[in-house]
Amino acid sequence: MNSSHYMTNLGEAARQASKTIASADTQTKDKALVAIADELVAKQSDILDANAKDIKEAQKKGLADALIDRLTLTSETVENMAKGIVQISELPDPVGEISDMRPRPSGIKVGKMRVPIGVIGMIYESRPNVTADAAGLCLKSGNAVILRGGSESFNSNQIIGQCISTALKTTNLPQGIVQVVKTTDRDAVGQLVTLKDYVDVIIPRGGKGLVERVAKESLIPVIKHLDGVCHVYVDKDADLQKALSIADNAKTQRYGTCNTMETLLIHESIAPTFLPEIGKILSEKNIEIRADDASRIHLLNALNAEESDWYEEYLAPILAIKTVSGLDEAIQHISKYGSQHTDAIVTENESAASRFIREVDSSSVMINASTRFADGFEYGLGAEIGISTNKLHARGPVGLDGLTNLKWVVFGNGEIRT
Amino acid sequence: MNSSHYMTNLGEAARQASKTIASADTQTKDKALVAIADELVAKQSDILDANAKDIKEAQKKGLADALIDRLTLTSETVENMAKGIVQISELPDPVGEISDMRPRPSGIKVGKMRVPIGVIGMIYESRPNVTADAAGLCLKSGNAVILRGGSESFNSNQIIGQCISTALKTTNLPQGIVQVVKTTDRDAVGQLVTLKDYVDVIIPRGGKGLVERVAKESLIPVIKHLDGVCHVYVDKDADLQKALSIADNAKTQRYGTCNTMETLLIHESIAPTFLPEIGKILSEKNIEIRADDASRIHLLNALNAEESDWYEEYLAPILAIKTVSGLDEAIQHISKYGSQHTDAIVTENESAASRFIREVDSSSVMINASTRFADGFEYGLGAEIGISTNKLHARGPVGLDGLTNLKWVVFGNGEIRT
Repeated sequence: MNSSHYMTNLGEAARQASKTIASADTQTKDKALVAIADELVAKQSDILDANAKDIKEAQKKGLADALIDRLTLTSETVENMAKGIVQISELPDPVGEISDMRPRPSGIKVGKMRVPIGVIGMIYESRPNVTADAAGLCLKSGNAVILRGGSESFNSNQIIGQCISTALKTTNLPQGIVQVVKTTDRDAVGQLVTLKDYVDVIIPRGGKGLVERVAKESLIPVIKHLDGVCHVYVDKDADLQKALSIADNAKTQRYGTCNTMETLLIHESIAPTFLPEIGKILSEKNIEIRADDASRIHLLNALNAEESDWYEEYLAPILAIKTVSGLDEAIQHISKYGSQHTDAIVTENESAASRFIREVDSSSVMINASTRFADGFEYGLGAEIGISTNKLHARGPVGLDGLTNLKWVVFGNGEIRT
Repeated sequence: MNSSHYMTNLGEAARQASKTIASADTQTKDKALVAIADELVAKQSDILDANAKDIKEAQKKGLADALIDRLTLTSETVENMAKGIVQISELPDPVGEISDMRPRPSGIKVGKMRVPIGVIGMIYESRPNVTADAAGLCLKSGNAVILRGGSESFNSNQIIGQCISTALKTTNLPQGIVQVVKTTDRDAVGQLVTLKDYVDVIIPRGGKGLVERVAKESLIPVIKHLDGVCHVYVDKDADLQKALSIADNAKTQRYGTCNTMETLLIHESIAPTFLPEIGKILSEKNIEIRADDASRIHLLNALNAEESDWYEEYLAPILAIKTVSGLDEAIQHISKYGSQHTDAIVTENESAASRFIREVDSSSVMINASTRFADGFEYGLGAEIGISTNKLHARGPVGLDGLTNLKWVVFGNGEIRT
């Protein structure tokens, strides 16, 4: 069977199974999730064996250490994977919830019911734990999912898929609810994103190249973010200690995450006091600074920032710094160079905070907090399937709610329209 | 200037203006809306003159009467257009509303703020009042809009656009907030749907052909419905009087609307009593009935339904009727042949109602009410810019809320992530 027929078959099975899981009760879904977790723990050594094969292959191919790191599973990560699935089973079921019920003059009552989207197509790289996480979130939210992981984690994903498959069988749920693509054929991605009749939304997770390719080729709506060029703006009315600690944390707590600060903006009136201090903190952590002329006066060893630096998602111990004349310039800079992911202001000034939060058009906007908080767990979603910078549907961290939608429900007693 | 440059210029102006209108306060927006309404009333005779030109042109081209009907404005419709805009000014402003604020263990408070989408591209046919309605809804929801009406209503749309333009000027708002495309070049539609950097969402309204073309060519997310193959299912436990009155109303109150019933499904056990009665009512109104064999036994003068009838949106005094073995077959039929627009069940049985409302995957699902209620005004949205059968973002009638989205807002006091 060629991969196009194979992918269509997966799509048909997913569409069929999506009806079963959409109307499954909470208990059945939670039982299946616990069964998946149990199976992952039970098959731990098989999972680690399969993962070892992937790592060996990756080393043979000379893949970068960072990539091999992300690929590597240990007994601890497998147990965490299982714990994550159990946690999802403990989250409230979003499906079927009815809200905003209002009586209308005609006599009908109108409200909204939270319902699954249908079939999710997930395309991702490296981390095999995404296979388990995404399966758990989709199942709990009443969706079927087709999982297409990277070829570098093929063996790991297959065995995790088998565990899920076994668990679905023991819970009497159709296999089509979670399907891990069983081919490394690169065409499979291109085919998945064209299965309009069978897949309702595509969620790509991985490098910018992958996400761009998927967004470009997809005939199906895509929930995505391309990159995270996140800003912290230190206002003239900032509390200096908060500003130092937030700027430090936003840049250095982790370098490779999409909610890491990439550009620091400073009000010119606070620059002479703030910059030397943050410069010292960052130098001690070996952060390379690329700054504009106005900022470099107050910094030791700062390189000259090029225009391209303002667009850059470094994902590395590098920070761009720019001095601005005020809130207007800060907002304009973020609007021009940012990626609408996460941006923060540090200020004690209520009206500056209020303007920033209203006018910065990003999926997360923060006052006096580190951009690193932009995360499904930190926001209380329980887990996240990804982060969205879309203008429609879900923005920011996407959890169970973002995997559902609202339909209108009308309760009448024989009403007709006149 | 060729039309590609022209459309790009409109896009740039819209993107620029969208920032102003996104952060405009409620009072400014409402003042502008009232100014638009006043201007429409003041320029009534100019509007009717322009409309007369369109009608003359349409008659010369031999356009169908129904089309010319939809195109025609009277002093009454112009006044209603103005009233509609005033009503929009009286609706609560959705922008800036913060909801779901929760403290998190880290100390931050996390909530969601309702924000405009940005720039809307509206593509529509015939009715010139859409120009005013859509402009009003987009402005109130803090969005800029580019309006591309049909060539048949070109002169009417231009003069309405001038009224809006004048009103924006007197309110000191940028002209880019509402722009009516000033060319009948068909390429303009194709260009509008590719302006990815300037337009955030496309809303097509018109015949299935137009909507399909727009959806196919658009590189921008589209809020749309293709057609309304709406069903009423009369359950075995239906109240006969309610069923008759709902089925009658859903089919005959208006024929050409997307929420009109196109197929009536009847439980086999109620068919012998229900069908002769509904048949009589519909015959008196000269409705053509196309029914399956099981139904035709109980109907006079019913034609034989072909497989293609179950897919058909007649938009005419024609109804397809099918007898089903029960709720399962009804849901399966709707799932296979329906268009996920609006479907209703008539039943006094709580568990049948509950299964129907949960399992029918349509943008509006109704119990004991006429499908004709699927409408923004009837639902209490104040007005609607269209109806969506999308699986993401807004489903069903789209009002002000559907023209906005939620971003995350985080309030901290210097919190950092550990």
